[in-house]
Amino acid sequence: MRTEHDFLGEMNVPDDVYYGVQTMRALENFHITGNHLDPDFIHAMALVKKAAALANMKTGRLPKKIGAALVQAADEILAGKWLDQFPVDPIQGGAGTSVNMNMNEVLCNRALEILGQPKGRYDIVSPNNHANMAQSTNDVFPTSMKVCLILKGKKLNEALRALEAALLDKEEAFKDVIKMGRTHLQDAVPVTLGQEMGAYASAVHRGRKRIKRSLEGVHTINMGGTAVGTGLNAEPQYIRGVAKELSGLTGELFTTASNLIDMTNNTDGFAEVSSAMKCTALVLIKMANDFRLMASGPRCGLNELKLPARQPGSSIMPGKVNPVMAEVLDQACYQVIGNDLAVTFASENGQFELNVMEPVMAYNLFSAMQCLTNAIYAFIDKLLKGLEANRSQCQYWVNHSVGIITALLPHIGYEKASFLAREAYATKRPVRDIIREHHILTEEQMEHILSPWEMTTPGIAGAAWMEASQRKISG
Amino acid sequence: MRTEHDFLGEMNVPDDVYYGVQTMRALENFHITGNHLDPDFIHAMALVKKAAALANMKTGRLPKKIGAALVQAADEILAGKWLDQFPVDPIQGGAGTSVNMNMNEVLCNRALEILGQPKGRYDIVSPNNHANMAQSTNDVFPTSMKVCLILKGKKLNEALRALEAALLDKEEAFKDVIKMGRTHLQDAVPVTLGQEMGAYASAVHRGRKRIKRSLEGVHTINMGGTAVGTGLNAEPQYIRGVAKELSGLTGELFTTASNLIDMTNNTDGFAEVSSAMKCTALVLIKMANDFRLMASGPRCGLNELKLPARQPGSSIMPGKVNPVMAEVLDQACYQVIGNDLAVTFASENGQFELNVMEPVMAYNLFSAMQCLTNAIYAFIDKLLKGLEANRSQCQYWVNHSVGIITALLPHIGYEKASFLAREAYATKRPVRDIIREHHILTEEQMEHILSPWEMTTPGIAGAAWMEASQRKISG
Amino acid sequence: MRTEHDFLGEMNVPDDVYYGVQTMRALENFHITGNHLDPDFIHAMALVKKAAALANMKTGRLPKKIGAALVQAADEILAGKWLDQFPVDPIQGGAGTSVNMNMNEVLCNRALEILGQPKGRYDIVSPNNHANMAQSTNDVFPTSMKVCLILKGKKLNEALRALEAALLDKEEAFKDVIKMGRTHLQDAVPVTLGQEMGAYASAVHRGRKRIKRSLEGVHTINMGGTAVGTGLNAEPQYIRGVAKELSGLTGELFTTASNLIDMTNNTDGFAEVSSAMKCTALVLIKMANDFRLMASGPRCGLNELKLPARQPGSSIMPGKVNPVMAEVLDQACYQVIGNDLAVTFASENGQFELNVMEPVMAYNLFSAMQCLTNAIYAFIDKLLKGLEANRSQCQYWVNHSVGIITALLPHIGYEKASFLAREAYATKRPVRDIIREHHILTEEQMEHILSPWEMTTPGIAGAAWMEASQRKISG
Amino acid sequence: MRTEHDFLGEMNVPDDVYYGVQTMRALENFHITGNHLDPDFIHAMALVKKAAALANMKTGRLPKKIGAALVQAADEILAGKWLDQFPVDPIQGGAGTSVNMNMNEVLCNRALEILGQPKGRYDIVSPNNHANMAQSTNDVFPTSMKVCLILKGKKLNEALRALEAALLDKEEAFKDVIKMGRTHLQDAVPVTLGQEMGAYASAVHRGRKRIKRSLEGVHTINMGGTAVGTGLNAEPQYIRGVAKELSGLTGELFTTASNLIDMTNNTDGFAEVSSAMKCTALVLIKMANDFRLMASGPRCGLNELKLPARQPGSSIMPGKVNPVMAEVLDQACYQVIGNDLAVTFASENGQFELNVMEPVMAYNLFSAMQCLTNAIYAFIDKLLKGLEANRSQCQYWVNHSVGIITALLPHIGYEKASFLAREAYATKRPVRDIIREHHILTEEQMEHILSPWEMTTPGIAGAAWMEASQRKISG
Repeated sequence: MRTEHDFLGEMNVPDDVYYGVQTMRALENFHITGNHLDPDFIHAMALVKKAAALANMKTGRLPKKIGAALVQAADEILAGKWLDQFPVDPIQGGAGTSVNMNMNEVLCNRALEILGQPKGRYDIVSPNNHANMAQSTNDVFPTSMKVCLILKGKKLNEALRALEAALLDKEEAFKDVIKMGRTHLQDAVPVTLGQEMGAYASAVHRGRKRIKRSLEGVHTINMGGTAVGTGLNAEPQYIRGVAKELSGLTGELFTTASNLIDMTNNTDGFAEVSSAMKCTALVLIKMANDFRLMASGPRCGLNELKLPARQPGSSIMPGKVNPVMAEVLDQACYQVIGNDLAVTFASENGQFELNVMEPVMAYNLFSAMQCLTNAIYAFIDKLLKGLEANRSQCQYWVNHSVGIITALLPHIGYEKASFLAREAYATKRPVRDIIREHHILTEEQMEHILSPWEMTTPGIAGAAWMEASQRKISG
Repeated sequence: MRTEHDFLGEMNVPDDVYYGVQTMRALENFHITGNHLDPDFIHAMALVKKAAALANMKTGRLPKKIGAALVQAADEILAGKWLDQFPVDPIQGGAGTSVNMNMNEVLCNRALEILGQPKGRYDIVSPNNHANMAQSTNDVFPTSMKVCLILKGKKLNEALRALEAALLDKEEAFKDVIKMGRTHLQDAVPVTLGQEMGAYASAVHRGRKRIKRSLEGVHTINMGGTAVGTGLNAEPQYIRGVAKELSGLTGELFTTASNLIDMTNNTDGFAEVSSAMKCTALVLIKMANDFRLMASGPRCGLNELKLPARQPGSSIMPGKVNPVMAEVLDQACYQVIGNDLAVTFASENGQFELNVMEPVMAYNLFSAMQCLTNAIYAFIDKLLKGLEANRSQCQYWVNHSVGIITALLPHIGYEKASFLAREAYATKRPVRDIIREHHILTEEQMEHILSPWEMTTPGIAGAAWMEASQRKISG
Repeated sequence: MRTEHDFLGEMNVPDDVYYGVQTMRALENFHITGNHLDPDFIHAMALVKKAAALANMKTGRLPKKIGAALVQAADEILAGKWLDQFPVDPIQGGAGTSVNMNMNEVLCNRALEILGQPKGRYDIVSPNNHANMAQSTNDVFPTSMKVCLILKGKKLNEALRALEAALLDKEEAFKDVIKMGRTHLQDAVPVTLGQEMGAYASAVHRGRKRIKRSLEGVHTINMGGTAVGTGLNAEPQYIRGVAKELSGLTGELFTTASNLIDMTNNTDGFAEVSSAMKCTALVLIKMANDFRLMASGPRCGLNELKLPARQPGSSIMPGKVNPVMAEVLDQACYQVIGNDLAVTFASENGQFELNVMEPVMAYNLFSAMQCLTNAIYAFIDKLLKGLEANRSQCQYWVNHSVGIITALLPHIGYEKASFLAREAYATKRPVRDIIREHHILTEEQMEHILSPWEMTTPGIAGAAWMEASQRKISG
Repeated sequence: MRTEHDFLGEMNVPDDVYYGVQTMRALENFHITGNHLDPDFIHAMALVKKAAALANMKTGRLPKKIGAALVQAADEILAGKWLDQFPVDPIQGGAGTSVNMNMNEVLCNRALEILGQPKGRYDIVSPNNHANMAQSTNDVFPTSMKVCLILKGKKLNEALRALEAALLDKEEAFKDVIKMGRTHLQDAVPVTLGQEMGAYASAVHRGRKRIKRSLEGVHTINMGGTAVGTGLNAEPQYIRGVAKELSGLTGELFTTASNLIDMTNNTDGFAEVSSAMKCTALVLIKMANDFRLMASGPRCGLNELKLPARQPGSSIMPGKVNPVMAEVLDQACYQVIGNDLAVTFASENGQFELNVMEPVMAYNLFSAMQCLTNAIYAFIDKLLKGLEANRSQCQYWVNHSVGIITALLPHIGYEKASFLAREAYATKRPVRDIIREHHILTEEQMEHILSPWEMTTPGIAGAAWMEASQRKISG
C-alpha cells in the first residue's frame, strides 16, 4: 500500500496498481452497471493523451523528459497493455472526470516507473499538472469519445460493407428467380428475388454512408477548450498543435472547432451518430423481417427462402428450425434504438458550459456500435452466405397470382382489369384462363405482356412487341 | 373594444368576447400547433372551477351572489356553450396559466353579464380573486387534466370493452376452425382460430384493466395545494370541500393528496397513464399484425382470414384489397407510442415546486386517447364485425404440416420424432404416410393422437384413449 | 347527388364536391385524428401530379386535351383553391391510397368541369387511367411527402437562420458582459455572455445544416417505380421526365432513385429527416434551459438575464413573470422528439415492397416541422429580441467566485491552487484576499492573470504580460 | 472431448463442460453483446426447472430416480454452483431456446454424473425428454424472466424503500429550514426544505408501489402452455402442479394464466414492468436535478444544500466539487428509459403464437433493474446520508424574496398585491419596507401573515390571529 492524497484527503492505494487516489474514489462511488470500459475507448483516450503530450512538448511547456515518459506509457496502452488498470464503471457522475483521472494516474505512475521513480511521486510527475497539462476532462473526454466512435465506426463500416457485398452476391445469384411482389402483405406484381436483394444492398449502402457522414461531425474536436471552452490555460500553439498531432497518430483529419465553447457545451453530434445508427437499424430490421417472412413455413408459410439451419429451433417441437440469425439481428437493432433514446435523454440534459451526462452517452454509443457490428457479421456468416432460394415455390406463387393483371392496365384500362380481377377471385381460377375465355388477349399477347421479364422492368409490359407486331402488320 | 389591464399593462379586447387581457396575451405569444384545446379538457376544467366555487361558497369566503353567477357560467360551459371562447394553443408556456386564465376570464365576464354588469368590470367579479379563489394554475391545471383523462378514459374503456366483446364473439364463431399455430413464423402445432381470438380478447382485457388501474392514480388531486402545494391561501375546509364537490359533480371519487407538495411537483402519474396506453397499444399492434398476416394473399400468402373489403386497395393494381383497418390501428398505436415519449420528456423536466411542461403532456395524452379510441371503433366496425375465416385454407395448412409430430413426443420420444421430421422434410411427403411406412403408429393411434381436439387442449394427445384401450386389452 | 362506383360497388356522392367515391369510402373508414391534411402536403402532391401529367403528355400517352385540363386543375390547387376538397384524415390505412385517390378524383372532376363535362364521367377523364397515369400511391405518396418536407423545411431553415442571426446579435451586444461559467451547475471559470450567445448561434447553425443535409436525401424520388418499384406501366421516357418536370416546377433538383425498388420499400430517409430535427431540438432545449436558468430569480436565483415580460406568470402570485417563451420552445421540442418516435416505429414496420405506414410518418413529420418553426419564431420575437443582460449581477457573481483560481494553475500548480480554494471555501473570503495574505501573487500579477479578458480567451492567463515584465526586468 | 449430436448433426464438446451440443451451437451463432447472462436469471430458471421436475415426478411421468438427480442438479445451481456453465450471449435468436437448452444440458449432464453415468448419455437422461419434460422454451423462458424480475424487483424495492426512509429522515431533519419555493425557476412562495424532502419521499413511495404493482402481473405464468399455449404434451395435473411447486420454492404466489395462449403470445406484462421503472425513474431524475440545482454554486448559485464531497470535481479546476452522485443517478435513469424503449420495440414484434424477441427484453429489463438498484444505493450512501442544509443561505433568499406577497392576497386583493410587487422590483427594496411605507399592514399584521409557519401550511396566512385580534377589539 502507498498513501496518496487529493483535494479531499488521503487514501491508501495498493502498491501494485498504476491508478491512484482518484480512481480509488471512483471505485467507491460508482458501482452502477458492473461492466468495464470499452477497450477501444481506453485506446482512444490514450491516443488523445499522447497527442496532448506531444503538443505540450512542442510548445516547451511540458519538460522533454517527463513528456517522453508519458508518451511511452501511452504507447504501452496503445499496444494493449494495462487494460486491467482501468476499473472504473462506464456510467459515472462527474462528466468522465473519473475516467480521465484514471488515465492520468496510470500514465503518470507508469511514467514515474519509467523514470525510475516510485509510484505516487506526483511532485515529480503529476496527473494534473503533466498528464492533464492544458487539458480538462471537458475536452479530453468528448474528444476521446469521438476518436473511439471513429475507431469503432470503421469496424461497423466494414461490417456494413460486407453486408452490402453479400447482398449484391445474392442479387446476382437470384436475378432470375421471379417471385411475387407484395405490398400490404397482399399480392402485388412480380419482382425478382435478385431485385429484392439488390434493394436491400442499396438501402444498406445508404445506411452505411449515413453513419459515415454522421461520423464526419465528430472529427471536429474541442481539445484546447479546457474547462469551459474558452481555452483558459491552453496556449494557442498547443491548441493548433494537438489536433494536428491527433490527426498524425490516427490518420484521421481532426480539426479544432471554430467555436470551442459550443463544442464543449453541446453533444448533438453524439446524438447525430446515434440517430444515424438508429435509422440504419430500421433498414436492417426491415430486411431481417422480410427474410423471416420469406422463410416462413416451411409448409404453412411463404417458403420462398431456405435459410441455413443453425440450431434446433425448439426444445419441444422436433424438426423445427427457426430463422435465428434474422431474429438476433432484429434484437440487436432494437438494442441500438433503445441505446439511442438513452443518448437522446443524456444529450438533452446539458447545462451552461457542459453536458455532464457524457459517460452514459459513451456507454450507449459504444455498446450500440459493438452490438450492431457483431450482429451484422453473424447475419452474414450464419445466414446470408448459405442462403438459398426456393425457386419452384416462388414460381408457384407467381403462377397462381391475380396481381399480374396490373400489367394489362395500359392495354385494357382499369375498369376491364378490375372486372378480370373480380372474376378471378370469385371463380378461384387462373387469370390466364379468364383472359382466354373472354377473348381479352391472344395467347401471343399474353405471352409478351405477362412475361416475367417485362413485368419486372420499367415500361408498359409488351409494348415493344406490340408495336413491332403492329409495324409488321401495317408494314 | 373594451380596455383591460393586467400586471403588464393595458390591452384592447374585442367587446363581444368573454375572454380577456390574459387570453389576448396568450394568443399573441403562442401560435405553436395551430390546434384547439380538447373540448373534453374545457369541460373538465369547468367542472373543477365549479367545484372550487361551490367549496368557496361553503366556507363563506366567496360571496353567494358572485359564486352563484360563476357557477351558472360554468354550467353553461358544461352544457357545451362558449367552446369558441377558448382560443389558446394547447402547447403553451407558463404551465397552463393561459388556459386557466382564459377559463377565469370567460367565467368572470359571463358572470358579470349574468349579474347585469358589463364585461371587464373585474372590480366586481375578478378572474383572480373570485374565479381563481384559493386556486392556482398549479393545482387547477393538473386537476383538470386528471378529470379530462378520466372522462376520455371512460370512452377508451368502452372502446376496449367493445373490442373485447367483438373478439369473444369471434372466439365462439371460430372455435372449430383448426389452424396451424406458428412460432418464429415457422409451423408449430395446431391451434383453433377461436383460441387465437380468445387470446386477443384476453390480452385486450388485461390492457383495458391496465389503463383503468393507471387512471385510479389520477383520482388523487392537489386542489388546495395552490401555488406550490403548501396550501397557502386555501383554507382547510375548502381543501376538504373541493375534492368532495368535484366527486359530487363527476360521480368519481376524488381524494386530496396526502402530500400536496409532491402532487404539485411530480407528474409521474401522467406518465403512468401514458405508459399504460403504450403497453396496451403493443397488444393491439400485435393483434392487428396477426390479422394482416392471416389475411395475407389472397393467393400468395397465408389466406386464412377474409377481411371485409373497405376500399380499392390500389390506384394502380385492379382488384387489390388491403387490410386498411388493421393498418390504421397500427398507425394509431405508433402515434400513441410517440405521444408517450413526448409525455416522458415533459415529465422528466420538472423542477422544484412545479413541472411547467404540463401543457404538452395534456396535449399528447388527450390526442393519444382520442386517436386510440377512434381507431379501435374503426377496427371493430369496419373489420372485426365482418370478419370471416377461410376454413378450407386453414385446414389445408394443418393437413400439410409437419409440426403435428410434436404430439407424438410423449409416445415415441424426441429422437424418433426428429427422425420423422427430417424424413418428412426430405421427402416432402405427409407425416402420416411416413408414420405408416415405418409402422410407428397404428391408424387408430394416429387418429386419436393427431386429433385436432387433442392437439389443441392440454394433455398428452391420445393419452386417455390409449389408456382406455390398454385397459380394454389387459382387461 | 351523383352515383359513382368503384371496384367494391356504387356510392352516392354529393354533386357539389370534386372528390368522389374513394374519398367517400375513406371518410367512412378513417376518423382517427379528427385533423386535416397539412395544406403544404396538398400543395406538394398537386406539384407531383402536375409533373406526372406533363411528363405523360410528353411521352404522348396522355392525350393533350385531358392533360391540359388536369394541369389546369392542379394549378388551381397550387393557387390555393379547393383546399376544402381534401377531407380525409391524415392517419389512414392503405399507405396513402385515400389521399392519392382524393387528389386524383378532385383533379379529374375539376378537369371534367373544365372540359365542359359533368363530374363523375370517369369514362372521359379517369382518376386511375389519367390522373394516376403511370403512377401508384406507392410512388406518388412518398414523393409528395418529400416535396412537402422540402417546402416546409425551407421555412424551418429560415426560422433557424433567423434564430442564429438573433443570437449573433446578442453575441455582439453582450460581448463585454463577463459572467461566471458553470459546469455541473458548479462555479467554473468566467466566460462572457456574448461567448455563450455565440455558442448557441454556432450550435443552431450546425443544427440548421444538419436538417438541410437530411433533406438532401429526400431529393431522390421513386416516381416511375409505380406499384413495387419495378416501373411496371411506366415508360422509361416518363420516368426520366417526371423528375425533370418536378425539378422545373419546384426549383429543386429531384433525381430518380438509381434503385427504385429500394426507394419504394424503405423509409429510412424520412426517419433521417425526423432524427435531424430531433438532434437539433436537443440543442434548442439546452439553449432554452440555459435561458431559464439564467433568468431564474429574480431575487432567489441567478438573475443574470432579463427576459421581456410576456404575460402575468401566475393566477395566484402577483408580480410573477415566467420565462414562458423558453418553456414553450422546450415543449415544442419535446413534441418533435415524440413525433420522431412515432416516425421511427412506423418506419420500422415496412414489409416487402412497401412500408404502408407512411401516412402516420407524414403526419408526424409535418406536425413536428410546423410546431418547431412556429416555436422558434415565437422565441425570437417574444424573447430574444427584447433580451437584456443583468450586467451588475453577472459581475457580482464573478467577483465572488472561487473558480477563477483555475487561471493560476500554470503559475502556481494544482496543489497550491487547491490549497487556495480550500482556504477560500473554509473562510468564505474572496480569493484575492487570500492570495494577498499568503503573498502568492503581487497585485500587478493578479490584475493581469485574473483579468476577465485573459480568463476568457485561449492561453495561459497573464502569460504575455509576465513574459514582457520578465524581459523588462532582465532587459 | 465427447461427441454429441442433435437434429442438425454431430459436434465435439469439451468433456469437462456440463453444457452440450446445443449450447455449443449457440456459442457459434451468437456473439452479440459479449456480456454474460444475469446470475439472477440463471437462478430463476433453475427454480422453474426444479418446479417442473417436481411436478412431473408427482404425475408419475418423470421417473423418480432421474427426477431426483435433476432436482439435485438444480439445487446445486441454486446454491451458486455452475454459473460458469452458462456461456451463451444474453441477446440471441430463437426466443431463448439456447438458454433453455443450455440449462437442460447442464441439468442433464450433472444429473448423469450424479447417477454415475458419463456426460452425454442422453439416452439415459435426456435434455429434451426429461429436463424439458412437458415444457417448451416458450413457457420456460418467459416464466424464468418473471421469476427473475420478482427476485431482482425485491432488491429494487428494498433500495427504493431505503431511499424513502433516508428522505423521511431528511424531512425531519430539515423541517424547520424555511426556504424559497420556486416554480418556473422563478421565486414563488416559501416552503420548508423538510417539506421538499417529504415530497420526494412521497413520490418515491408511489414509484415503489408502482413497480411492485407492475410485478404483480408477472406472477401469472404460462407454465404448461408448452409450445403455443395450448398445453400440448402437458398433463392438467402437471399444469396445476407446476405453479404450486414454483410458489412453494419461491414463497411467491404464482398462478397459471387462465388463457395460456394469450400469456404465451403477449409480452405486454414485461413492457408494463419496464414502464413502471421508467415512470419511477422520472421521479428520481426530478429529485436528483433539484439536488443539483440546490447545491449549485457554491458561490454563484443557489447554494442551499451542501452535498458531501466525493471526489475532486475537475482535472483542471482546483477546489471544484461536483454533485456526482446526483449526476450518476440521472444517468442510470436515462439508461432505464433507453432500456424501456428497447423492451417496447421487442414487445411490439410478437407474431402469432410467440414473441421471439424475449431475450432482448430480458437483457434490458435485468440491466435496468440492476443499474437502478445500484444507483439508488449509491445516491443514498454517498449523498443523502451526508446531506446538510445551508440554513443561512436558505433564510437569506426568503428574506429577499418578493414572492411572499402572495400571502397578502386574501387580505389586500390581487390588484394591490400586484402594485406592491411592481414597486418592490422597481425599487429593488424589501417588500416589508414598501408595506410599511404605504401603511398597508401593521408590523403586527406583517409578523403574523408573513410568518414562515403560516406561509408553509394550508390556510389564509395570519387569518386565525386576525380573527382573534378582531374578537379582542370587538370583544
